[in-house]
Amino acid sequence: MIHFESDYLEGCCPQILKALQESNLEQTLGYGEDPHCARAADMIRYVFDCPDAEVHFLVGGTQTNATVIASQLRPHQGVLCAETGHIHVHETGAVESCGHKVLALPAPDGKITAAQVRRALEAHQSDFSREHMVQPGMVYISFPTELGTIYSRAELEALHAVCEEWEIPLFVDGARLGYGLEASGCDLLPKDLSRLADIFYVGGTKQGALFGEAVVFTKPALAEDFRYMIKQHGGMLAKGRLLGIQYEVLMNEGLYFQLARRADRLADRIRAAFRGKGIGFLVENTTNQVFPILTNDAVERLSAEYGVERWQAVDGTHTAVRFCTSWATAESAVAGLEAYVEKNF
Amino acid sequence: MIHFESDYLEGCCPQILKALQESNLEQTLGYGEDPHCARAADMIRYVFDCPDAEVHFLVGGTQTNATVIASQLRPHQGVLCAETGHIHVHETGAVESCGHKVLALPAPDGKITAAQVRRALEAHQSDFSREHMVQPGMVYISFPTELGTIYSRAELEALHAVCEEWEIPLFVDGARLGYGLEASGCDLLPKDLSRLADIFYVGGTKQGALFGEAVVFTKPALAEDFRYMIKQHGGMLAKGRLLGIQYEVLMNEGLYFQLARRADRLADRIRAAFRGKGIGFLVENTTNQVFPILTNDAVERLSAEYGVERWQAVDGTHTAVRFCTSWATAESAVAGLEAYVEKNF
Amino acid sequence: MIHFESDYLEGCCPQILKALQESNLEQTLGYGEDPHCARAADMIRYVFDCPDAEVHFLVGGTQTNATVIASQLRPHQGVLCAETGHIHVHETGAVESCGHKVLALPAPDGKITAAQVRRALEAHQSDFSREHMVQPGMVYISFPTELGTIYSRAELEALHAVCEEWEIPLFVDGARLGYGLEASGCDLLPKDLSRLADIFYVGGTKQGALFGEAVVFTKPALAEDFRYMIKQHGGMLAKGRLLGIQYEVLMNEGLYFQLARRADRLADRIRAAFRGKGIGFLVENTTNQVFPILTNDAVERLSAEYGVERWQAVDGTHTAVRFCTSWATAESAVAGLEAYVEKNF
Amino acid sequence: MIHFESDYLEGCCPQILKALQESNLEQTLGYGEDPHCARAADMIRYVFDCPDAEVHFLVGGTQTNATVIASQLRPHQGVLCAETGHIHVHETGAVESCGHKVLALPAPDGKITAAQVRRALEAHQSDFSREHMVQPGMVYISFPTELGTIYSRAELEALHAVCEEWEIPLFVDGARLGYGLEASGCDLLPKDLSRLADIFYVGGTKQGALFGEAVVFTKPALAEDFRYMIKQHGGMLAKGRLLGIQYEVLMNEGLYFQLARRADRLADRIRAAFRGKGIGFLVENTTNQVFPILTNDAVERLSAEYGVERWQAVDGTHTAVRFCTSWATAESAVAGLEAYVEKNF
Repeated sequence: MIHFESDYLEGCCPQILKALQESNLEQTLGYGEDPHCARAADMIRYVFDCPDAEVHFLVGGTQTNATVIASQLRPHQGVLCAETGHIHVHETGAVESCGHKVLALPAPDGKITAAQVRRALEAHQSDFSREHMVQPGMVYISFPTELGTIYSRAELEALHAVCEEWEIPLFVDGARLGYGLEASGCDLLPKDLSRLADIFYVGGTKQGALFGEAVVFTKPALAEDFRYMIKQHGGMLAKGRLLGIQYEVLMNEGLYFQLARRADRLADRIRAAFRGKGIGFLVENTTNQVFPILTNDAVERLSAEYGVERWQAVDGTHTAVRFCTSWATAESAVAGLEAYVEKNF
Repeated sequence: MIHFESDYLEGCCPQILKALQESNLEQTLGYGEDPHCARAADMIRYVFDCPDAEVHFLVGGTQTNATVIASQLRPHQGVLCAETGHIHVHETGAVESCGHKVLALPAPDGKITAAQVRRALEAHQSDFSREHMVQPGMVYISFPTELGTIYSRAELEALHAVCEEWEIPLFVDGARLGYGLEASGCDLLPKDLSRLADIFYVGGTKQGALFGEAVVFTKPALAEDFRYMIKQHGGMLAKGRLLGIQYEVLMNEGLYFQLARRADRLADRIRAAFRGKGIGFLVENTTNQVFPILTNDAVERLSAEYGVERWQAVDGTHTAVRFCTSWATAESAVAGLEAYVEKNF
Repeated sequence: MIHFESDYLEGCCPQILKALQESNLEQTLGYGEDPHCARAADMIRYVFDCPDAEVHFLVGGTQTNATVIASQLRPHQGVLCAETGHIHVHETGAVESCGHKVLALPAPDGKITAAQVRRALEAHQSDFSREHMVQPGMVYISFPTELGTIYSRAELEALHAVCEEWEIPLFVDGARLGYGLEASGCDLLPKDLSRLADIFYVGGTKQGALFGEAVVFTKPALAEDFRYMIKQHGGMLAKGRLLGIQYEVLMNEGLYFQLARRADRLADRIRAAFRGKGIGFLVENTTNQVFPILTNDAVERLSAEYGVERWQAVDGTHTAVRFCTSWATAESAVAGLEAYVEKNF
Repeated sequence: MIHFESDYLEGCCPQILKALQESNLEQTLGYGEDPHCARAADMIRYVFDCPDAEVHFLVGGTQTNATVIASQLRPHQGVLCAETGHIHVHETGAVESCGHKVLALPAPDGKITAAQVRRALEAHQSDFSREHMVQPGMVYISFPTELGTIYSRAELEALHAVCEEWEIPLFVDGARLGYGLEASGCDLLPKDLSRLADIFYVGGTKQGALFGEAVVFTKPALAEDFRYMIKQHGGMLAKGRLLGIQYEVLMNEGLYFQLARRADRLADRIRAAFRGKGIGFLVENTTNQVFPILTNDAVERLSAEYGVERWQAVDGTHTAVRFCTSWATAESAVAGLEAYVEKNF
């Protein structure tokens, strides 16, 4: 069985394992106040061209989302997000457990637009009963989205503009950030992200690390007392240097981006294979997730040889499945899949 | 200006004012542990034919909804409700502030169906990622709904059946309960409500009281330690007897239902007046709220003489407005409105 | 049986009842946006000499405390308060239910000092593990305290100074504010309160109203979006004018203070009666609560004729009981009690 | 500089590093549903002799405490704990952020007694205002405590008995569980823990793992839907197998206990060294933390060569410092310290 179910099936890239081994007997302060975290933060500031940013390391994405959002909102505020947004559908109500409503907006391709955000803000502001409603206090997007789509630079500029005008932070969930930045057709550079997002994170878990998400506050004022928040949310790793060590490796000589690029190109090959057979997709995208729509019979047969996620029933006889590539995907696995598609579709 | 904006424009029905006056110098224990509350609870048990029910009195609806819902759910659970449900749109996220997600279902007429609830429960149960999602743990409906529509006995039976099967409580927001039970075409009796709902409340604020909502737990086990919850939510009125006194009056000789019936009949006259002119409604209903769709010009002119709520823009040139009747609506006000409609539409 | 158990045994002062009656059929907007609330707020600003203050009306004390505190703190912050503070011991964890720790300080007489507050703030600030601890973000005191003691002007000046220096708000729970301001030996004027507290409230429930607490934000910036918070906490009364009407009456021609003064003087007589017999008190105070320490036998006998609260066992044979006076206490009841004490102690 | 500041200064024991390396390219399901977690859970059930227990793996202690406590309490309930308890003082209010009050009990040596717990429960139950107070709904102890002291079997039996009688769960924070079980004089066996605690955890972070806490629900009913809770609290590690792999290693052939035993014996030597010089301790204990009380001068000199934590000022001229040993402490470091103490005290 060749597995394409997710981008976190394996451990970590060998460079990280090596670094963990080499540093294992170092003695450092705990809770992220060690030299590795300091260096990794510097490297992230350098790579994303935001010398004044504040950088914090957390363990996982749900934790990061809830901690960041809770740190920014007042109690009567909620967070605008796509109806497919991870915080809305796949975090067991972590945001609500912190007291905040997720204000979901329609988003067939996983993306929300500046116009939607503006309309939501204006509608709230102009409603004479607005005090009886949750006040939108933040915008959450994921880049790439849960459907593997990406925002263009213009789209992100527009979201940035409306957030700036309304004085609410724009928060970018970057659990798969690298896959987005390296996608074919992506016109965003790392420095655009730090220029346009108030807060974003550089996902590690799905991009070669054992675990870890690096949160970047491009406006340091937004990070006030954030370490208290991390601790309260149970996200302050005692041996915090584990996070620093991993990000030192990933940020070194562009490894983070190399790994992502390779995975995206392998995904491109999978996309091309299905497209070549006239097979359509749940959504058009160019990142490491591929969502072909197959007949249920085809899914059945495919599943005997390939591990994929059955993403969504499209109609009574078709299902969209998900293939994920990652730093760990073997080129041979993709070549085999290409041959399988060629032969069986 | 004749006001039809809401059903809480005035103080209270004169019988309540009289009772407050007569009891003013009585000395009683506080916090709802007085003889008035005890008697009022007995009367409610009698009227709704639920001798074993536990009855608690709270001050307002938002407070009641949040307190009841928080008392029933575990942290990872949410509450299913119509997308138009009061808890979803008009309580400033009170339910989320207690940590719970509101799981909204489409509901063009303000009602949700047993089939929708079943599908939501089955979809959750069959999703292999369900632990990453909020678990539906309760069903909230309002009777009548925010759009003034009512559930038939069969519809409520069906909702009851699915809740019973899935072992989750069915909670009925009865902020306007009387207006629903007295509506033309309503085939529900008070005893049906106590038989079919696990928890419901008998709204006072909008039905002749100064304030107050009487929560009925038809399964007393669901009310365990509920008084702690009321206190924690700031809903335990020090002079709790004020609630008992008001409900003694309302439950006495059917006053609650008389007042509602009268208001519903006045609303029927308003509906008939508009219908007679071929004017349509945002929603067909038979309770004390009327939602005719008028041209914006007509709304403008109407508003010079009648206070109404502009409920919702229907298209570029039409708006649905809301007329509310209540215990306090003068027959002459409705007669005047009938004449106005006759003449101007 | 003559009742001295609490200061909320009866309804309300007759002037309020009359005003409710006279205004009953007025039609007003709901939710506190009516002319009565506007006038009452003006009167409070005038009486407390704070023309720029923002005033909001809520129904009860627990609700008010939780709403105010939640509106001021960030998630990692807690509120400093006396270990006897109402929010710490008698609100079923309402503050914690909003996510905030109550940071209790020792307070044998119910009061905390500026020195204690400063030490707590300094200790936090200088602790290298402070990010692992709840950050003190607010000071809560009650005036008078739960033990009926009062702060002097100098004490309040000192608390104000430390709060100002550390830039955290000073919040005064004034559930019994009038009884404090009218107490023998009180050197605080209403205008001192508005000068020294960032937020305080003028309690109605225990001082002649049916219910109601008027919150005064002396720094309006602290009240930003407070109405959203009131709504979220279930404290926004639909018929909000009921609060406005009551405070119009209480603030009119000093009624609020007259009622409190009378109650305090009656309490003074009770204190004198016991003191005349050489009986000691749980705490020395001058407000409307009296806490003599009696033998258990004496309590037993007394309880046959007088309703009092058994406040606290002092030792195996003695108990401190509480007598409360209020606007409703009859002079004859106190005279009778004086005679009883004279004869039986 | 030789470091004794904490027991989480280094990475992990080499056996774990090796296992991570060997398993790195295995492909497994995420979120703890992999064979390693299953095996590790089995091993824990075996070692602690609780074949029916449910075992879950989380990343860190604060997260574990908050998640477990939130999973057990209803909203109006709080958790009894020592005033020195980690959840009360060093978790930035994580428990309160979930809505629950920590009900602190005096505990000079870090331990609470069954008698204290019983008194607290009885006091609550007999208070006629109990509905205005937080209801104790759970008991939290740490074993060993934050001061390195341990409960005897008799003490734990007594706590267990009172919890069972009052039907509230007894939860044991075992962040340093091994150090407790291996301490000189400890008469508790692993199987006693599973017999006497309703929920406990086997700490990994401070005992040789990179991170990880294994929660054991000895009564599986208490674990209902616990995985939803883990996810909501951000504690569900995507690559969950990392936890399983580490516990497989630690539970294998008693490694967990060997590492702890060795550290405890090294701590015994440090204790003996100071005791031999007539130096007293903040608290008498036998686990891996040692708290000698030294003159401030001595602390100053010592700190030039040894990293220790300044735990607590004892008086104007003395400070209690903390030495921690761990799996990673070199025998030579302790021998050097012995020589230092011999020479300098």
